[in-house]
Parts: sequence; structure tokens; C-alpha cells
Amino acid sequence: MYSIKLKNKRLFYLDQTQLPLKEIYKECRSLRDAIRAIKRLEIRGAPLIGVFAAYSVYISLKEFSGSKKAFITRLKKITDCLRESRPTAVNLFWALEKMEKVVWDNQDKDLSKLKELLLQEAILIHHQDVKLCESMALWGVKLIKNNDTILTHCNTGRLATSGIGTALGVIYHAYKRYKDIFVYVDETRPLLQGARLTAFELSRWGVPFKLICDNMAASLMQKGLISKIFVGADRITLRGDVANKIGTYNLAVLARHHKIPFYVVAPSTTFDFRIESGEDIPIEQRSPHEVSKVLNKVQISPLGIDVFNPAFDVTEHKLISAIITEKGIIYPPFRKNIRRFFEKYERG
Amino acid sequence: MYSIKLKNKRLFYLDQTQLPLKEIYKECRSLRDAIRAIKRLEIRGAPLIGVFAAYSVYISLKEFSGSKKAFITRLKKITDCLRESRPTAVNLFWALEKMEKVVWDNQDKDLSKLKELLLQEAILIHHQDVKLCESMALWGVKLIKNNDTILTHCNTGRLATSGIGTALGVIYHAYKRYKDIFVYVDETRPLLQGARLTAFELSRWGVPFKLICDNMAASLMQKGLISKIFVGADRITLRGDVANKIGTYNLAVLARHHKIPFYVVAPSTTFDFRIESGEDIPIEQRSPHEVSKVLNKVQISPLGIDVFNPAFDVTEHKLISAIITEKGIIYPPFRKNIRRFFEKYERG
Repeated sequence: MYSIKLKNKRLFYLDQTQLPLKEIYKECRSLRDAIRAIKRLEIRGAPLIGVFAAYSVYISLKEFSGSKKAFITRLKKITDCLRESRPTAVNLFWALEKMEKVVWDNQDKDLSKLKELLLQEAILIHHQDVKLCESMALWGVKLIKNNDTILTHCNTGRLATSGIGTALGVIYHAYKRYKDIFVYVDETRPLLQGARLTAFELSRWGVPFKLICDNMAASLMQKGLISKIFVGADRITLRGDVANKIGTYNLAVLARHHKIPFYVVAPSTTFDFRIESGEDIPIEQRSPHEVSKVLNKVQISPLGIDVFNPAFDVTEHKLISAIITEKGIIYPPFRKNIRRFFEKYERG
Repeated sequence: MYSIKLKNKRLFYLDQTQLPLKEIYKECRSLRDAIRAIKRLEIRGAPLIGVFAAYSVYISLKEFSGSKKAFITRLKKITDCLRESRPTAVNLFWALEKMEKVVWDNQDKDLSKLKELLLQEAILIHHQDVKLCESMALWGVKLIKNNDTILTHCNTGRLATSGIGTALGVIYHAYKRYKDIFVYVDETRPLLQGARLTAFELSRWGVPFKLICDNMAASLMQKGLISKIFVGADRITLRGDVANKIGTYNLAVLARHHKIPFYVVAPSTTFDFRIESGEDIPIEQRSPHEVSKVLNKVQISPLGIDVFNPAFDVTEHKLISAIITEKGIIYPPFRKNIRRFFEKYERG
């Protein structure tokens, strides 16, 4: 199983909308394919979207023939379209900037060289993502001890990155290191990434878990059955506010009430240094049908009713126990410590 | 539309599992029909189960011929079976006790008279439920003001009672009294009573609302979009702990964090005076398939995985702002005030 793969300079990916019952791989041949795959969530997960977008830039340009000026114009159009495909996750913007920079920095090179450099950059972003996951997992596992029961939300694993994942990567390492780790998986309405994707991954890798509906997490915490919560992130602000899959903020409030540590795992590319407060993060509103017609198959409500369907919510930094990055663990006070952390390591 | 109806001494009910897309009425002809209807949730909602069970006792005995002793033995068997059909809601037990008492108190009467008395008692329980709903709504509406935005969970309306409902009854009255009332409806996984039933009711009665996934409520509260929360109850203990549909406790914790009033609306028949703490309320665990296969139609997770699926959770009295009954509003401290309240009014 792989989430994304480059083979003979062609880009293949697992269509996540068909999981867990069907494991179907598709080829992305054009910008149009790429946009559709991202918008339909065939490819999702903030880090994976970044890697996929980088490859998509190359794929969309590899057959290009024309002037260098036209090439650069086309590049700009491609990155703009990709940037608009999903507004919340910041890794996408980061990856596209990296791709653009390759061309800006090498405008003296000819087209075939520029294409080659774009390919190399995308591969670099891909390999870097794999390594970031390993590093995050090594840091995160320090926060886990044997017999921990971990609650997680959405999917943050092999299907959300091109490596072993962010929050789920930590869980994989913990399971490898300790024998007795148990996971509760939020199904994660409306698109059920927990039930479909995380359950699929944990089943395949043999990690013991139970699936729950999102509204059952509180009851588990009340019974003392959750020792830690690990989630991913789509964007983190300067003061440590975290945008992540809708339902994350709910868990953070529950964690605070029940005095359970609440950890966010994300690569440093998830930080957006232009934004102080989570209120300034644009939150994608998606189709009402995602709620009213489950997986586009079962109509669960009367037709034509109003629905509120934000894809993400924002968790205030005050509710977060620590943020685990590939370079180490950041603890509160976040405003001060995030700045110090990045001053020390520089942005990777 | 009706949830339950007696016509020519025959019992008809709306099969709630087929809503909102199909409005199908069924007849309950036997104890077996009754048990199946309750277990499959064709009939659900604590007060409605009580009324339905009372009628079912009559329906199961109306063709009985045999000795009075056999009649009484049969009655005992019927009430035992019905009591076992769902363990959490206490109105069921209350209604069955009322039905049994009619026979105990009239053992000198002949069979046809006993049957007639059972029918009269069931009708009384039914009419009483209708009145209780009106009374609760009149009390509850005092807690609402114009422009309130109310969040509710599960279904507590005309489909959960034989009247206008408990929490939803309050909302109906508020909407009638004030013009600008808006409702957010939790879809209420796993069985989606909010999406299927509450959305159906509110659409039909023209109350403006939006449907949300359960995990979106926190985000609405964070944005200041929820002014009050109203829920029903399946059982309330002496100190005011409340068992209700899974997800209720989640909302109560969120309400506390966001300083939003959290109200429980339930008839006095919902109180269980034998139990002090909510920990002693038996919580029904239901089939994993309710979670893993939405509405028995779409498999959302890998096959054969473990699932945690409690039908109810328990909200500690400390998180509740007030309990609205047909006789008035009970405020904290609940342990003292519930006792006083019932000493004053006696149990109805």
C-alpha cells in the first residue's frame, strides 16, 4: 500500500474516497486531474496534499513546449489553481512556494533543465516528508508510556502523509516500542476519515483499536479510559492556535475538562508565521451533502434542509499540552516558545 | 402525522426507522410485534416507549382466554419481556408498573373487566403524556427569550412522546411565542435521530434550523452562536445525574466550558428514586453494526473491527443548569431540591 508514488516520472496515488472497501490506485496526468483529486479528497491530509501538489506541478509541466516566458506564466497559473484547491492546510502553500522558487532561482536554465529541477524538488519534498514523519514519531513517542490508551481523530497516518504519518506515526512507534498500547478512533464525521482510513491503517498494521462515534469520546474520558489524545494539524499560528479537522476543538475542550493531555503532531511546515490568532485562519466550508448524504450514498435527513459544514475548527493554544514537530517538542507558553524554537532551528 | 394511535382497540405506530424518507405506519398486534418494534427502535424516545408498552400490554392480552390465574401469569410474563426490551429509560418501567397495579388492585373483577381496565389505564397514560408535554413546554419556555439560538440533541419531539415532546416541545412553544428562534440540530450518531427525526419534525412544523454533525457543536459555541442547550432524559437519579442519548454528556461539558446554560426537559416519570448516582444507571450497549454500517446501508469501516457503542451516557448533575418537569423547574443544588420538589407535589 502507498498513498502516493512516482514511477517512470508518472504520478500514482491511492484514491482514498474508495477506502476501506476498495483499494484503487489512479494516475494523475494533468493539472485538472490534480485539482479534482484534491477537491474530491481522493488525496487528503495536509502533508500529503503538499507532496502531491509538488509532483502535480511537475506533471502539469513535463510535456510543456513553448517559450520560457510562457513556461513561467503557465507555472504561475498552475500554482495559483492548486493554491485555491483547499484553503486551510498550509503545507500546500509551502510546497508550491518551494516549487516556484526553483524556477525563480534558475531562470537562466533551459526548459528541460527547469523541468528536471522541478522533478528533483518534488522528490526532495516527498523524501523530506517521509523523514519528517520518522522524526516526529521519535519525539512523540517520548510522551507515551506502556498501557496508554490513546484517542485520535481523523486520519493522520500513512494516508495523510507520504511517510508513516503525524499523530498516527507517533502511535505506530509507540506500538512498536511498547506492547500494550490501545487506540480509540473517532469516526470523524462527516467524511469518516477515522472509520474509513485510520481503521483501515490500524487493521492492516495490527495495532489494537476500537472505533467510536465522535460523540462517545466524552463518555470514555469520563470513565477514565483515555490517557492521552494525539491529533494532527492543518495550520498552526504564531501563538499556537491549531486548525485541524472539525471535531478537534471538541476533543481539546473535553481533554481540558477531564485533565487529559492533548498533543498536536505536525511538521514545522504546518506553522504559518504570518498569522497570530486562529481566528484569522480561513476555514473551508464544504457541501451540505457531505453531512446529509453519508458518503454520497445514504440520505440521512429530509431533502433540501440547511446544513452547517465547516471542514476544520480552531483549537486555542491554551488547550494544547504540547506541539510535537520533527525538530522537537514545543511546550507552553507557545507564543514565546514557538518563536524561540524556530529561531534556534531555522525553518526547514 | 402521529407517533402512536389507538383505533378500534388496535394499536398503530409510525415506524421511525424509515423516516425521514418514508412515512410508514404499522400495526402492533402482539407482544412479539411490540418487543421487535422497541428493540429495532421503530418506536423510541423514553416517554413514547412508556405509552407504547402500556398499550402493548393491553394488545397482548385482549384476546386472552383462560383462567384469571393464567391471565395474571401471562401479564407478568408480558411485562417482564417488555421491561427487558430496553434497560435504560425508566418511563418504560413506570408505565408497566401502572399497568400491573391495575390488575393487582382489581383481582376480584372478571377477565373482560380487567382487560377493559388495562385499556383505560393505557389510554390514561397516553393522555397524561400528552398533557405532561404541554406543561413542560409552558415551564421551559420561560427560560427562552426572543433571538435565542438553541442547540438540541437526538429527538425529543412528537416522535419521542405521544405529545409535542420534551426538549423539542419547549422549542415548539418558544417558536410559537417568539418569532426569532433558531435551532441547531445535532445529527446524533450512530442512529441519526437528529438528522432523521428532529430535522423531519422541524421541517414539517416550519421551525428554522440547521443540521450539524455532533462534532461541530463545539465550534458553534466557540463562535458564540449557541445561547442555550435543551435535551431530554431517559433516567434522572435522586441527585440529578441524567442518562440520555450518547453525546449528551459531551454537550454538557462543552456548555460548561463556554458558559452556556444546559437544560434537561423530562417528565417526573423519568426520575428514578432508587438511584443516587448516575454510575448506577445501566447503559445499554448496542450492536457494533449501528456504528460501522450507517443505517444498515453503508459500510463505513473495514469489516469485523471492534466498536464501542453505548446507546446512552450519563451527565453529572454539576453540569446541569436546570431540570424542567411538568410541575416546574428544578434548580441546583439538585440533591436537596429534587427531594423537596417531589415532597411538595408528590409523584404524579
